[in-house]
Amino acid sequence: MSKSIAVNAGSSTLKFKLFDMPSEEVVAEGTIERIGEKMGHAKIKYGDGQKHEEEQPFVDHGAAIKYLLDQLIALGIVKSYDEITAVGHRVVAGGEYFKDSAVINDDVIEKINSLAEYAPLHDPAELVGIKAFRKALPNAFAIAVFDTSFHANMPKMNALYSIPYEWYEKYGARKYGAHGTSHRYVAAQAAKMLNKPLEDLKLITLHIGAGASITAIKNGKSFDTSMGFTPLAGITMATRSGDVDPSLVAFVEEKTGKTSAEIIDDLNHKSGLLGISELSPDMRDILDAADKGNEKAQLALDIYVNRIKRYIGAYIAEMDGADAIVFTAGVGENSAPVRKLVTDNMDYLGIKIDQEKNQCHGVQRDLSAPDAKVKTLLIPTNEELMIVRDIERLKKEQAN
Amino acid sequence: MSKSIAVNAGSSTLKFKLFDMPSEEVVAEGTIERIGEKMGHAKIKYGDGQKHEEEQPFVDHGAAIKYLLDQLIALGIVKSYDEITAVGHRVVAGGEYFKDSAVINDDVIEKINSLAEYAPLHDPAELVGIKAFRKALPNAFAIAVFDTSFHANMPKMNALYSIPYEWYEKYGARKYGAHGTSHRYVAAQAAKMLNKPLEDLKLITLHIGAGASITAIKNGKSFDTSMGFTPLAGITMATRSGDVDPSLVAFVEEKTGKTSAEIIDDLNHKSGLLGISELSPDMRDILDAADKGNEKAQLALDIYVNRIKRYIGAYIAEMDGADAIVFTAGVGENSAPVRKLVTDNMDYLGIKIDQEKNQCHGVQRDLSAPDAKVKTLLIPTNEELMIVRDIERLKKEQAN
Repeated sequence: MSKSIAVNAGSSTLKFKLFDMPSEEVVAEGTIERIGEKMGHAKIKYGDGQKHEEEQPFVDHGAAIKYLLDQLIALGIVKSYDEITAVGHRVVAGGEYFKDSAVINDDVIEKINSLAEYAPLHDPAELVGIKAFRKALPNAFAIAVFDTSFHANMPKMNALYSIPYEWYEKYGARKYGAHGTSHRYVAAQAAKMLNKPLEDLKLITLHIGAGASITAIKNGKSFDTSMGFTPLAGITMATRSGDVDPSLVAFVEEKTGKTSAEIIDDLNHKSGLLGISELSPDMRDILDAADKGNEKAQLALDIYVNRIKRYIGAYIAEMDGADAIVFTAGVGENSAPVRKLVTDNMDYLGIKIDQEKNQCHGVQRDLSAPDAKVKTLLIPTNEELMIVRDIERLKKEQAN
Repeated sequence: MSKSIAVNAGSSTLKFKLFDMPSEEVVAEGTIERIGEKMGHAKIKYGDGQKHEEEQPFVDHGAAIKYLLDQLIALGIVKSYDEITAVGHRVVAGGEYFKDSAVINDDVIEKINSLAEYAPLHDPAELVGIKAFRKALPNAFAIAVFDTSFHANMPKMNALYSIPYEWYEKYGARKYGAHGTSHRYVAAQAAKMLNKPLEDLKLITLHIGAGASITAIKNGKSFDTSMGFTPLAGITMATRSGDVDPSLVAFVEEKTGKTSAEIIDDLNHKSGLLGISELSPDMRDILDAADKGNEKAQLALDIYVNRIKRYIGAYIAEMDGADAIVFTAGVGENSAPVRKLVTDNMDYLGIKIDQEKNQCHGVQRDLSAPDAKVKTLLIPTNEELMIVRDIERLKKEQAN
């Protein structure tokens, strides 16, 4: 029995999903939270809905990982450390350097370290996780899977901004995008559902959660994406503004006396649904309030839906058509009302859903109306599965 | 004989076009430049291609206007000051206050003054022009025509950003757009060409000059527009970046040690075609260089065309279709290659031009291929004509 673990390390958290391979069966998953704090919290789900939950302090990620591995043995999920033969780490920022997932070695670690300026909240924490797992499972095959790598080969026309070229050359100011693992996963699933080779398809994947991005996928490759240099750009999100006139940064700075970094922080954390509604970043609250006649909630909803429509139209124009649009992630998977609003009045573009089929959440389903030219698919994302599939792929590549 | 003059005052310039009304015949037009400098320059075209050109100092706008009026008499274009019965002034920023052109009075002047912070390079200069004409022609009917007023009633969903709501309420942070007079003019002409009431049409007007904006016009009203809080946002322009991730402002600030205001200035004056190509802000130079294999010029061209396509698609999605797209302004009227590139590979959206019809510039023409679902029109803009038409309309409204 050989198992692969997909890991997502935050500054004080560790999320994991353990897969039996090659069956891809999930044998355990869970989170360890408040690492480095006075009291930590661990939660492991396994077997047929069994759950192990425990409060105890974890001094660092190394301690959390040792606890996790020992618990997996204690709960009878694995027999020994060696049974976990591979680890896949999610890494947010891979810059222009990582155009694919990478087998971890000293060079790769150094490179991720040097890219930390593009994801100061993420890459350093992820490195801590990578190093701790290296120590705990020195013989495991370990890879890093980057949120950005799917977009790293995007055509320069879409990756570059209309800014002084040297800002790109000197400082790496370009569009990096995000959620690449998710877009890649649902695109592969969409090809299966449509029963066509991914290479022959034009897809628009809507990863709509608290963070949200839309990607145009042409011939299996990211052609354009709505997030930008950072995950701030693009459509309206839970607390992020998405696209705004950059002049606003200097203008609000002058008006409020804040620094530009503080304004960018406001645009990341006090904007989006929360900023407009002044109520909640959560789409469920917005829908409820709008339903009860709250005007700002209604406005937030209208803006949210409208920005998604804009990108769908833009990407249909860029690709001269689309075979399917794909809803995924928190809101995309679970909110039938949002899916309805986004696809309403899109007849000219050939998008039309069956309202009855749309009454569902979290399942893989073709929602299209029979006469739709562009299919609308609902595909729950699974970034962890994509990560362990990358492990298999890179193992084979390395073997050849 | 009654004449109306359309005026565009800059900080050291005065442009004018004098119309015989109601025939709308242009009887003179010209510019006075370098007002307030050691030596000024005046140019007046009139009659059948006649031209009067003169170098002389103009201490201020008042002096320039007096010179202009006296020359109009000296050249036999008007018999007396009184023959010019109306003046229409172009004003860049009308904020949320001016939702239509306005008859000038003390209140209106004060209001324009208070809006100067939204157009610090324009509104103050325009006020100087307004006041100087008031003095020179105290009996003339005078109006202000705002670049923004066409967009002032845009649906809130499109006018507002996903930012903290109080930034809108307290500071007026919203989308104001620009080129409203041009978009309005070509939309009216498009309705005539299509022989349908403007109120029944969905139009996408592409005002593409050194500055450029795209407007979605639904039922005769601005529904959405690509410029934003300032004319920096939207598509790639001669030297303006158009849309960029706002995070870049703080990032480049940190990298270069510049202030955010300096970065915004770079995004306005060192970006766009010039920034990418590192060659020229002029589309003719870019086309030439791209043709000769210059890679950065080619990239600038690709980005430029791509951003226009994105907005066309976005606006077709927002309006669920379009009856026509309209090319106007410098590049739109004169560059057949750009029109070709923008409309190439847009079959899915129903846009297709006749390549032979496209071989023209500066004429009003339907460029559509016979099987195009969305018409493509070429309509030279005429903001001055729109201004004097507004004079007639407001005169009538005031008389009623």
